[in-house]
Amino acid sequence: MKLYYNPRSRATIAKWMLDECGADYELVPLDFERREHKSPAYLKINPAGKVPALVDGEARLFENAAIGLYLADRYPAARLAPAPDAPERGRYLSLMVFSTSQLEPSMGDALLKLETPPPRGWNDFDITQDVVEQELGDGPYLFGDWFTAADVLVGSMFIWKRMWGGAPGRPKLEAYVDRLLQRPHALRMG
Amino acid sequence: MKLYYNPRSRATIAKWMLDECGADYELVPLDFERREHKSPAYLKINPAGKVPALVDGEARLFENAAIGLYLADRYPAARLAPAPDAPERGRYLSLMVFSTSQLEPSMGDALLKLETPPPRGWNDFDITQDVVEQELGDGPYLFGDWFTAADVLVGSMFIWKRMWGGAPGRPKLEAYVDRLLQRPHALRMG
Repeated sequence: MKLYYNPRSRATIAKWMLDECGADYELVPLDFERREHKSPAYLKINPAGKVPALVDGEARLFENAAIGLYLADRYPAARLAPAPDAPERGRYLSLMVFSTSQLEPSMGDALLKLETPPPRGWNDFDITQDVVEQELGDGPYLFGDWFTAADVLVGSMFIWKRMWGGAPGRPKLEAYVDRLLQRPHALRMG
Repeated sequence: MKLYYNPRSRATIAKWMLDECGADYELVPLDFERREHKSPAYLKINPAGKVPALVDGEARLFENAAIGLYLADRYPAARLAPAPDAPERGRYLSLMVFSTSQLEPSMGDALLKLETPPPRGWNDFDITQDVVEQELGDGPYLFGDWFTAADVLVGSMFIWKRMWGGAPGRPKLEAYVDRLLQRPHALRMG
């Protein structure tokens, strides 16, 4: 398995997933200054010219949430996802998608200080934080005591926010970040 | 199964999925003017206060891509997704996520005529269209002759674009929309 990677990119999220799975993989570093992520060879793997991408035999993946969904099902022993027929599966899939469709763009609006963001498909960051707090409930993780791939995807956004040096956020979410960073493989920027 | 719905919303995508699956479901209309999508009862189903949401017994879902992933696996006889261990699974998951993480926001930038969109996690619409054209290949669908849930999610974006009255797009993508609209259950706005 090969992870196309840059240590200062979203690919750190896919790396965290691989490490939580205990997967055996090779890191293929891509040099952004040399535009290696826009080379014709790489565009055949990820036509969007972004990292991460994952190649697993004949399988080819791009987008962190997709990589997370794939790996969690491929490594069932790591217990990072509800089984396809489990009642929690619906909420799990929803949170995986939400991390990239709602949480990341709304956090981006907030970090970029877009005063009057145009009407978009996502809510503003206050509401997406309300959603995460509600879904987290009493925690410690999104599925109670059970750490899942949804914590990798949703949690990475808040870890990033802290790394970018934003003002401290809501206490419940900061405590969630503290908890996630105690995991040995938690997201680190290179 | 209950689909929380409004005929002039993104929930039309989830409805198309349900119909492709041949699912037996109930439509629960939500009146936006009466703010039914922000009621405390509905926020327990989808804390983001958006449609669609899907309730299937104990399972609860929000976000179209999540609903698509869920239904395609729940109705294997409809053959809308590669099996979890099939080599096409990776590309399928990637396209499902891409539809909401890259394609929808980049199309939104283009339709809103954001002249200088701030740096975001997604590419501009020219590049996301390049991606779709590359992944479509010779078609007719994203997986050749095989129509999947990825066509529902990715195709809905281009159907919408046409409905919103945007200028005609690239010939290959317009032909894809024509083809999708020939399906009996294809997305329709109410």
